Amino acid sequence: MKKEERVIPYKIYLEESEMPKAWYNVRADMKTKPAPLLNPGTGKPVTKADLAPVFCDELIDQELDNDTRFIEIPEEIRDFYKMYRPSPVVRAYYLEKKLGTPAKIYYKFEGNNTSGSHKLNSAIAQAYYAKKQGLKGVTTETGAGQWGTALSMACAYFGLDCKVFMVKCSYEQKPFRREVMRTYGASVTPSPSTETEIGKKILEEFPGTTGSLGCAISEAVEKAVTNEGYRYVLGSVLNQVLLHQSVIGLEAKAALDKYGVTPDIIIGCAGGGSNLGGLVAPFMGEKLRGEKDYRIIAVEPASCPSFTRGKYAYDFCDTGKVCPLAKMYTLGSGFIPSANHAGGLRYHGMSSILSELYDEGYMEATSVEQTKVFEAAELFARSEGILPAPESSHAIRVAIDEALKCKETGEEKTILFGLTGTGYFDMVAYEKFHNGEMSDYIPTDAELQASLDKLPKLQ
Amino acid sequence: MKKEERVIPYKIYLEESEMPKAWYNVRADMKTKPAPLLNPGTGKPVTKADLAPVFCDELIDQELDNDTRFIEIPEEIRDFYKMYRPSPVVRAYYLEKKLGTPAKIYYKFEGNNTSGSHKLNSAIAQAYYAKKQGLKGVTTETGAGQWGTALSMACAYFGLDCKVFMVKCSYEQKPFRREVMRTYGASVTPSPSTETEIGKKILEEFPGTTGSLGCAISEAVEKAVTNEGYRYVLGSVLNQVLLHQSVIGLEAKAALDKYGVTPDIIIGCAGGGSNLGGLVAPFMGEKLRGEKDYRIIAVEPASCPSFTRGKYAYDFCDTGKVCPLAKMYTLGSGFIPSANHAGGLRYHGMSSILSELYDEGYMEATSVEQTKVFEAAELFARSEGILPAPESSHAIRVAIDEALKCKETGEEKTILFGLTGTGYFDMVAYEKFHNGEMSDYIPTDAELQASLDKLPKLQ
Repeated sequence: MKKEERVIPYKIYLEESEMPKAWYNVRADMKTKPAPLLNPGTGKPVTKADLAPVFCDELIDQELDNDTRFIEIPEEIRDFYKMYRPSPVVRAYYLEKKLGTPAKIYYKFEGNNTSGSHKLNSAIAQAYYAKKQGLKGVTTETGAGQWGTALSMACAYFGLDCKVFMVKCSYEQKPFRREVMRTYGASVTPSPSTETEIGKKILEEFPGTTGSLGCAISEAVEKAVTNEGYRYVLGSVLNQVLLHQSVIGLEAKAALDKYGVTPDIIIGCAGGGSNLGGLVAPFMGEKLRGEKDYRIIAVEPASCPSFTRGKYAYDFCDTGKVCPLAKMYTLGSGFIPSANHAGGLRYHGMSSILSELYDEGYMEATSVEQTKVFEAAELFARSEGILPAPESSHAIRVAIDEALKCKETGEEKTILFGLTGTGYFDMVAYEKFHNGEMSDYIPTDAELQASLDKLPKLQ
Repeated sequence: MKKEERVIPYKIYLEESEMPKAWYNVRADMKTKPAPLLNPGTGKPVTKADLAPVFCDELIDQELDNDTRFIEIPEEIRDFYKMYRPSPVVRAYYLEKKLGTPAKIYYKFEGNNTSGSHKLNSAIAQAYYAKKQGLKGVTTETGAGQWGTALSMACAYFGLDCKVFMVKCSYEQKPFRREVMRTYGASVTPSPSTETEIGKKILEEFPGTTGSLGCAISEAVEKAVTNEGYRYVLGSVLNQVLLHQSVIGLEAKAALDKYGVTPDIIIGCAGGGSNLGGLVAPFMGEKLRGEKDYRIIAVEPASCPSFTRGKYAYDFCDTGKVCPLAKMYTLGSGFIPSANHAGGLRYHGMSSILSELYDEGYMEATSVEQTKVFEAAELFARSEGILPAPESSHAIRVAIDEALKCKETGEEKTILFGLTGTGYFDMVAYEKFHNGEMSDYIPTDAELQASLDKLPKLQ
């Protein structure tokens, strides 16, 4: 490593005093606002009253607020953030060297906390508002387990009861995730379960099912609305989640600004959109206001390609169809990624905010196959030291590909990507990869069409 | 959290430019030097020539150097350190609040790297010197897996071959640790194995054995000395390891000095002594030079109590008796902790440096039972967010106990402890604890005596 290259430290940390004091609401800068959620009964935009049995009051306000540009982060949340934030922006000197690229690669690393991902940023906010409202507890679903862990931690902090429905195949494959949640006092139920009517119904219809996120959501919502003092919380997709996650982008931008660095390309993995939406928020704001331009790339798994092969339409958010309808890029609420798909990013739809921005051309999307993703993950681990989550490794894959293009052209582009988390609980997938047992699956057009044909007819 | 309490930030990070440029060799300040290693054949102090077939040349120099106070950290190692260092000193505001103690608790957190512990600090140094010597690779043993992971990462960085003998019960209970090592390109063999003569011999003698650290060490050493271009490296106990680990204490002291904080009590868990020796080094130096006084406490498991119930005597470092003899607090090289003991800290002996300092009264030692350790771990996780390694939780237990004593007496003592790592790969133990299936085991006097009776007769 040459001296002159090290003007920018390996890790850029903000001071605690420089941490964001308000979340940034990108909707305020969108000319076309994201389409509203619809009441599935009436087909009309949901009202606060519609959502009140499901969500916490203040979170509903945030969900519906398309206008306030900055929303203050309550001091109690900022106190919690200080446990694991600010998170560093890391200059990937070692990866650059290994690739031999003239590109400058940075990543915002959100994995240095026990949930192992960025999910904690929204979990603590949602737990805070639940506590403030005087609730007893919250219910939620979790797939890969990062969100459930994050929520367990947040609930332990505020002394809230936490009830997690964990997708059954994940519950069985990831017993350690379950134990982390239990360490934080959460109760964890494999979904579908017999604890809910919708769970029983699904089990009756599909006795051998290993569950899906959409199904776990239905159960968690039912549990919340049928229990006094409980509400449902969700770790992605919703506007409020992207709002909370803007702390990622705000910190990243502040850190880069300190050193006069402006990214040319910003890359994030995209499942429901929480990380991507949070990372790009302030950059997207500048783009929307016409102040700056950035190339923004969403990366999704080829096995669950909502942006690249889905339809922009109103769809159910959950399998049980108890949630409001959202307009989003979707594969259909019945879509379940192939069993060989590792890691998260398996939700059938995409944040309404990001869907609208993508539809308007403010960002690109690409999909990658998982063996290529794990190749990138291993290369990254060996050069940068951090063992990345499979989800995050989708972004790594595209960051590496872009850096290799720079190697060909000689361009010194600056790339920023989101390293959302660590892969410590994903070693089963890594093992498959090491043993050459990992395969790729790309749904056929016919399969996707069959799922899309079942979209609700109201559009 | 009141405003006036927050003058000291939650996490104190040094700047990269403030990171130590030299390791501190506490032996230079010891009036009585640690007893030398003995050649098991001659019973005389080992020479560089004796050690050369086993260890890297420059590491032997460090091992035998009792006089040089500061040894420069080569730039290549400092570059690697920047991947995951400086590590923060964290003020445990949330734990203090939960305990209601007037004590001020700080911990130096070494878990924010993929090895999950402080072990990387010495692994990268040992890999560097192996590379510099032109070796092909290194061999080692690993118990809980932290050291093996750390060494794999270090070898991947320098392009060295890495051969790990992993204690069989650990290999079987921790398949994910194995996969992390494979991600970094290491080969991992369960020990005892049929790859070595000593392994075959042990398997013949004890066909059902699940292995021990002492046995894995013997195999790794044999593998190194019988293969051209290989040397053996060790993650604890040795003087060189404590030297490298001094980076922990140097950073911790620099961070606290910045804020004018002086600890009254310094607490570290102790297996072979690598973390404790590193954490306390510069503080111990001041104590040895009569400049300052600190209460220094080593915490060991009640099931493997080398300091508190062992004998200060020359003993074999390994089961196969191929290594030099070391004078240390030991339970006898045949001692194997009860099968119910979770986590690391299971080595029969203790660093010669720490043994001498303990013998001279420069530090205290205490032992704790594992259910109490996991109670502390869970309390810590729920208040500070970080899921601690079982090893680290020994120190947490005693830090909490000391803070609770302050609550009784009203004393505002300042406590610093070493949080050596995270528990992500220890969820089987956490699960046992959650299910009430964890038990304690304290060896009887007769059991210990039987093991101590087999100490070599040369003293």
